[in-house]
Amino acid sequence: MGGVARRVGVVGIGLIGGSVALAIRRARPDAELVGVDRGPALERASAMGVFDRLGSELSTVASSDFIVLAAPVRQNAALLPRLGEALRSPALVTDTGSTKRVVLEAARSLPPHVSFVGGHPLAGAARAGAGAARADLFEGRPWLLTPCDATRGPADLERVRVFVAMLGAQPRVIDAEAHDRAIAFLSHLPQLTASALMHVVGCAVGERDISLAGPGLADTTRLAASPPAIWRDICATNSDAIVPALDALIETLTRLRGDLSTGDVIAEVFGSAGRWRGIVERSTATDEDE
Amino acid sequence: MGGVARRVGVVGIGLIGGSVALAIRRARPDAELVGVDRGPALERASAMGVFDRLGSELSTVASSDFIVLAAPVRQNAALLPRLGEALRSPALVTDTGSTKRVVLEAARSLPPHVSFVGGHPLAGAARAGAGAARADLFEGRPWLLTPCDATRGPADLERVRVFVAMLGAQPRVIDAEAHDRAIAFLSHLPQLTASALMHVVGCAVGERDISLAGPGLADTTRLAASPPAIWRDICATNSDAIVPALDALIETLTRLRGDLSTGDVIAEVFGSAGRWRGIVERSTATDEDE
Repeated sequence: MGGVARRVGVVGIGLIGGSVALAIRRARPDAELVGVDRGPALERASAMGVFDRLGSELSTVASSDFIVLAAPVRQNAALLPRLGEALRSPALVTDTGSTKRVVLEAARSLPPHVSFVGGHPLAGAARAGAGAARADLFEGRPWLLTPCDATRGPADLERVRVFVAMLGAQPRVIDAEAHDRAIAFLSHLPQLTASALMHVVGCAVGERDISLAGPGLADTTRLAASPPAIWRDICATNSDAIVPALDALIETLTRLRGDLSTGDVIAEVFGSAGRWRGIVERSTATDEDE
Repeated sequence: MGGVARRVGVVGIGLIGGSVALAIRRARPDAELVGVDRGPALERASAMGVFDRLGSELSTVASSDFIVLAAPVRQNAALLPRLGEALRSPALVTDTGSTKRVVLEAARSLPPHVSFVGGHPLAGAARAGAGAARADLFEGRPWLLTPCDATRGPADLERVRVFVAMLGAQPRVIDAEAHDRAIAFLSHLPQLTASALMHVVGCAVGERDISLAGPGLADTTRLAASPPAIWRDICATNSDAIVPALDALIETLTRLRGDLSTGDVIAEVFGSAGRWRGIVERSTATDEDE
């Protein structure tokens, strides 16, 4: 896999971009690694001590042959045309955003010497920012890949596949529409639910009684620590898939609400949920370090 | 605390009743410990090897001076009048149910020589049944106590307080109404939400794609493994407090649904949720073994 990525550029150095950089450096000590970010994030990236060169302009990655866009989704989409202009020689670009259709649409305007494959690592952590980055963040985790019109050939998809495997992830190709719909349920709905639940519970019980919270509430609301800025972008670029997911949850909660005394809906929903939970436990049994 | 409970009876030997028995045995090796349950649960209780005597009738605890009711809430309430008849000498009874008003109402019919103090240990585990019982389940956890008309004097409240402290818990007295309202938000709403979410996500994505689930979904749905039978009882005996909690969550989810594109509600709800989450993290920081 020596030739997959000799000169790697990372644009947006938070938890994901920082972990990509650490994982590359671990796998390819000799790769040239440059990064782009701004303000305090650039200072934190510098403190990581893993980049050969850092800058606040896209020209910093102008001579990279493999670029990872790891800013929030709408920033990635807005950066793509400018990145296309900045890149002087043939380059392969991928991203790490949680929604795929918007960035794939933006990739249509890329010049012919720039190829694009969408990407989405299914990895996260309780903390945001480069300070929480880890070389093993992607270890054993799925990394979804969405080839598109701007993918200049099957060899480019293969290069991205080898690249993410090099970071420890398990690549899997998926259509962008199917991706956005599945992730609305698997990731976006749990996030919105955890945040809504934490907000409602906190406001209702207040500071004194929140200390009664046990491990159940703590688990259920762990995602509520996620940064709002990233989620504004995700929700704005996937609202048509998130709305039906929210509707399905609201409908189930409403059915439970109407049947608390008899318990028939409780039996049905808890029975179904228990079976699905068993499957989730078996499939995430190796992720307990999260 | 030698005289708090010489002859202890446990009625209902699942996760909680079994853990109470193990914690008593650890703290008071010389106490007489008897238990009541039926069928396979009685066999599992026997396998624990911690009880001096076991039986399937309430008469088994007739000579106990301290009885812990640890069956589902409505069973506890139904058992109380019969327990009152079965007890031959003065005894103090407490329970471990997640709702308090219904059992306190049932306690009004107890004869004068039987005293009652409601109790609710805020402890849980991912697994149900005596097989999952642990002597340290209550270590450092709050144990809410609700004295009532059937509490025959302040000395009885003090005895229960000393008893739960002996099990490692932190006793805290609370009014039954306030208890049921706060716990509807702190425990019942998270449980219903986790089960509803797991049901909706599983049904939407199916067996193949559920394997993409990451630690976020796994955390948010951990409670979905809870046994339906216990929750039918809890919901049936606290529906008037759970309905407003569900309404508040449905309202917040509906507001998020209507604002996915602009993100103002996301910013508001995630901001509030992040602040409450910080408080929950600090207050449950020692519970990471759960």
